[in-house]
Amino acid sequence: MSRKNYAVVGLGSIGFGVAQSLLRAGLNPVGCNRSERSRKAFEALGGRTSADVAEFAAQTDVLILCVVNAEQVEQVLFGNHGAAAELKRGSLVISCVTVKPAFSESVGDRLESMGILYLDAPVSGGPAQSAAGQLSIMASGSEEAFAAAETALSAMASSVRRLGDRPGRGSAMKVVNQLLAGAHIAVAAEAMALGLRMGLQAEDIYAVITSAAANSWMFETRMKHVVSGDYTPLSTVDIFVKDLGIVTQTSLEQSMPVPLASAALQRFVEAHAAGYGKEADAAIIKTVPGIGLPEQKSGR
Amino acid sequence: MSRKNYAVVGLGSIGFGVAQSLLRAGLNPVGCNRSERSRKAFEALGGRTSADVAEFAAQTDVLILCVVNAEQVEQVLFGNHGAAAELKRGSLVISCVTVKPAFSESVGDRLESMGILYLDAPVSGGPAQSAAGQLSIMASGSEEAFAAAETALSAMASSVRRLGDRPGRGSAMKVVNQLLAGAHIAVAAEAMALGLRMGLQAEDIYAVITSAAANSWMFETRMKHVVSGDYTPLSTVDIFVKDLGIVTQTSLEQSMPVPLASAALQRFVEAHAAGYGKEADAAIIKTVPGIGLPEQKSGR
Repeated sequence: MSRKNYAVVGLGSIGFGVAQSLLRAGLNPVGCNRSERSRKAFEALGGRTSADVAEFAAQTDVLILCVVNAEQVEQVLFGNHGAAAELKRGSLVISCVTVKPAFSESVGDRLESMGILYLDAPVSGGPAQSAAGQLSIMASGSEEAFAAAETALSAMASSVRRLGDRPGRGSAMKVVNQLLAGAHIAVAAEAMALGLRMGLQAEDIYAVITSAAANSWMFETRMKHVVSGDYTPLSTVDIFVKDLGIVTQTSLEQSMPVPLASAALQRFVEAHAAGYGKEADAAIIKTVPGIGLPEQKSGR
Repeated sequence: MSRKNYAVVGLGSIGFGVAQSLLRAGLNPVGCNRSERSRKAFEALGGRTSADVAEFAAQTDVLILCVVNAEQVEQVLFGNHGAAAELKRGSLVISCVTVKPAFSESVGDRLESMGILYLDAPVSGGPAQSAAGQLSIMASGSEEAFAAAETALSAMASSVRRLGDRPGRGSAMKVVNQLLAGAHIAVAAEAMALGLRMGLQAEDIYAVITSAAANSWMFETRMKHVVSGDYTPLSTVDIFVKDLGIVTQTSLEQSMPVPLASAALQRFVEAHAAGYGKEADAAIIKTVPGIGLPEQKSGR
């Protein structure tokens, strides 16, 4: 089966870059988003768009899902006027969405029963990597699904780790990844807060830790916000409320205690409750009283 | 005052390398340790040794402490036949020991009242960095103490971060460092355990995480033990029972909650209680039941 028609559902922080990468690769995808603003932005790059997945699903060979959460995956595929009922037998759905492994397995089972291929393919990387076609993808699915996905994955990603032939493994790896990512941010904020409380300077802490064995990629990128006092988000507090929620729910289903991830989740929930949900995730440090956080320099 | 006579007390994982580095720099230090085995090893390199600090303290200009904990610092300096009573006015004590900031301040105060200079100078780095004279040092103390320490620090360290003129600041930074280091190991073990429970392969988890934003230096170095099944220690579980103990005690004194560091400490205590205290710190993962840890390949 030759695959000519591509679509990307969800033109958000990952999906927009995915659609861009497919466009650059000559795959001429339809970019689908309810928001007119996102559609206009993709049209400005020369992309085709649609507000409604049902409008183009019957003509689509490869449907890439970059929506926000499991509820949206459910809605797009199996909801009222959902795509699954329109997709041809032998077409492929690639899901880049962070969801519970059990949910991804269930999506795979339902699509398989309709004769549709499915690749469980969560991503690591942000908007910049996505726009550059440099995502890291952790994927699982049948040989047939991998083969059908090859052209799209080449356009989107700089690395694809194959994690077996069953949907769910890709999402399981994403759970491991998000456990570490979220807990590292919470640990970074906790360490920075204790250092400030003891009277150390944020710049000194940043300089010492980033050149020591105590460093993490998250400390290095996130604690810049604290040093500068600028919490303009690249990734928000609310993303980790969601993703650490998935981590802890999954851990319960696996009967596996995750005390550090659970403590980390509470820090993000606390920051959300305090009104910092849409700020950079490093803003969890703002809920700690009496530490004299650096303020943003004016005039920048 | 010209400083000619150097001594290193404690020829352990850090102290032996410090003594070696001073020897290489032509400072001809006395290496002091109760264990004959450590003394013989330093003598084999051409070093002078002693079993008793009181024997050489009166002739020492710069005394470097590399003992295990605060109790030993107290004993060596102020105990029966302690060094402080023997040291000349104007001599210098450099402490590389991980202790509570308040303890380090108290040592500084007591030495100052005896006319002895003091540099609070905890280190980051292991035996290899120490032997190569490549430690990272986080130091605080008077200008006079820094000036007196310069020759020794140049021999021991590749970087010295100056954190102000009051003892305690160096130790405060070390607390921040150890909070991150210990919590990162606990998070790494937690994430690896959840991944194994979900049926992922240890090698896959290691490969994906170490090339992703979820990586930390500790994940990268410590999870090698889990992948290989070899828990031969470079740094042990018991070191973090001690150091995260210092972190949590300090946080209480600062009225500053550290939920992630506290949860991490419990994992190390649990592993100690289960008999893994002298194994590599990654052995905290062994207390998690039912995850099918990789076993060490035989014949290596």
